[in-house]
Amino acid sequence: MIRNFLTERLGINYPIIQSPMASATTPAMVIAASEAGALGSLGAAYMGPDEIRSAIREIRRSTKYPFQVNLFAPQKRYSLTDDEVDRATTPLRSIREELGLADRNSVPEYKDRFSDQLQVLLDEEVSIIGFHFGLPDDDDLNKVKTAGALLIGCATKVSDATALEKAGIDFIIAQGFEAGGHQGTFRSEDEPSMIGLMALVPQVVDAVSIPVIAAGGLMDGRGLAAVLALGASAGQLGTVFLSSPESKAHELHKRLLLDGARDGTRVTRAFSGRPARGLINRMMNELDVIPNGILPFPYQHSLTTEIRAAAGTKNRPEFLSMWAGQGANMSRNLSTAEIVNSLAVELEQVLKRKN
Amino acid sequence: MIRNFLTERLGINYPIIQSPMASATTPAMVIAASEAGALGSLGAAYMGPDEIRSAIREIRRSTKYPFQVNLFAPQKRYSLTDDEVDRATTPLRSIREELGLADRNSVPEYKDRFSDQLQVLLDEEVSIIGFHFGLPDDDDLNKVKTAGALLIGCATKVSDATALEKAGIDFIIAQGFEAGGHQGTFRSEDEPSMIGLMALVPQVVDAVSIPVIAAGGLMDGRGLAAVLALGASAGQLGTVFLSSPESKAHELHKRLLLDGARDGTRVTRAFSGRPARGLINRMMNELDVIPNGILPFPYQHSLTTEIRAAAGTKNRPEFLSMWAGQGANMSRNLSTAEIVNSLAVELEQVLKRKN
Repeated sequence: MIRNFLTERLGINYPIIQSPMASATTPAMVIAASEAGALGSLGAAYMGPDEIRSAIREIRRSTKYPFQVNLFAPQKRYSLTDDEVDRATTPLRSIREELGLADRNSVPEYKDRFSDQLQVLLDEEVSIIGFHFGLPDDDDLNKVKTAGALLIGCATKVSDATALEKAGIDFIIAQGFEAGGHQGTFRSEDEPSMIGLMALVPQVVDAVSIPVIAAGGLMDGRGLAAVLALGASAGQLGTVFLSSPESKAHELHKRLLLDGARDGTRVTRAFSGRPARGLINRMMNELDVIPNGILPFPYQHSLTTEIRAAAGTKNRPEFLSMWAGQGANMSRNLSTAEIVNSLAVELEQVLKRKN
Repeated sequence: MIRNFLTERLGINYPIIQSPMASATTPAMVIAASEAGALGSLGAAYMGPDEIRSAIREIRRSTKYPFQVNLFAPQKRYSLTDDEVDRATTPLRSIREELGLADRNSVPEYKDRFSDQLQVLLDEEVSIIGFHFGLPDDDDLNKVKTAGALLIGCATKVSDATALEKAGIDFIIAQGFEAGGHQGTFRSEDEPSMIGLMALVPQVVDAVSIPVIAAGGLMDGRGLAAVLALGASAGQLGTVFLSSPESKAHELHKRLLLDGARDGTRVTRAFSGRPARGLINRMMNELDVIPNGILPFPYQHSLTTEIRAAAGTKNRPEFLSMWAGQGANMSRNLSTAEIVNSLAVELEQVLKRKN
């Protein structure tokens, strides 16, 4: 189970994928994960083209092993009414005041840099490319196929998985309800995905003929062995890497994870407009209850950018987006390399257990 | 993994528990499951004491293997205001009319027969007793302990699991968000449980020192192998037995399961007042959206009893409670014995797979 078609095709030692968490991965994390035998993954969605290029080059200087670069597929644009903007900015007023930010009645522009980001991946001949939030259009998809890159897509339900296979994707992530961070639903207006990994993986495996990568709530070798038993070819883990020194998550976020996040996690649209699971905090509690008080992605993301930045600077975790999956309480104080090594040892231990 | 402390203690061949689904199990199902090597389980919560006694005797006439009898722990009583009753009966008016039922402005009495039910289990010396919805009071718990019965409790979160262990329960069911039927939350007013099985099992296993039984979304040997890898000692499966000939689920419910329930499942309080997962239908869609339109358990259960009975007689699945887990689409047209045999074969196949 440990070595299979997927590990051969991706050129990795273990069926372990370090999740491309857009707000937390660093070249150092990718290097450490790939050097240790997993697939290191750069979450490049929020990075500018030049930043992506230098990150790719930095990774290549330190490892010869394969790695993934992951982007958000381009999103549908909405035209917002004054009333919608008003309903979204009003509940943020007192939060901005608490953080010493000036009042704001408009949404900062969100620049969709997808074409430029993708061009960097093509220029740099990135060999493994992942897309979150569905897929880019046929033209862009054909470009990366022609370039010969292996493609990873994300599905939160069976119908999305079959759509990805039909589009010619090489590997499908089956992302369960347990997963931290943004759910890979295709459209911003989609309902949050509510299918648990235990039920999702076998149904996706039965529906497609390409390898499936399971994601959501996995924190150790037990979880990895479990998803291999369900028929997945690998497990993708994010939260367990969030508290590592290589992660650029906020220090208070890391500390909450390692201390055993007592308030648990919830799926919210408060920070970005798209459903994402994170540690429950005041910003979620205040915004989640206001009808129509949250703009669609990416506008809510733009609207809360200053708030999240100020909350980081001022160490106010109640206003930070602290993504985490339902396994958050199993976080461990280890480096990225130590995590991959532990996962591999634990996986072998579970697989060796006899009746 | 297949034979362990739990299988030895319960005296079963396979780490498989046929779930005690209160509205669907029959003596025939329990006999078939236990004879095939699983733990057959009678969901006796809605049965009168005499009915339970004769079912136990019927089971014992046909099998010498162990079986479980499961009850709902006694529930907190509420005093309902006229306004609450009015808000709950109003949305049912048109449904009752469609089914040819007379109008109803009051809640039929719900007789809590727990003491009498438990007395039958003690009189008949039932050796494995399970409780759903928390535990009975200390007096009743001491009675079953003194009688020497093995006790099974259900937890949907870690803190409930540790409470069960502290109370002296022998085995803990870790019930994931994926599970069909009633969530085993302790109090009727508890929020629905939202933890996926993949994240719940290892956390419960780490928190208690007694064997854990995983439940929720499991439909085949892959799921069984997965929960054993997570550290569970057995898997409990319900939905997969619902469509068997031994199940007393409604024929239209069985057909929807076998045809691949296209509308999916959702957690609702519409039928009983307690969160339970079932196939999405009109009754759920109509009632779930009405603020304060649903009474707490067991009053909503009493209020919808006639509706569910009439819907059954008149073959109107849109008003039936059709419990199902998130693996519903993996249902198979097999008998109870064939299901247990298939599960055992599949489990061995997965465990035998090599790297």
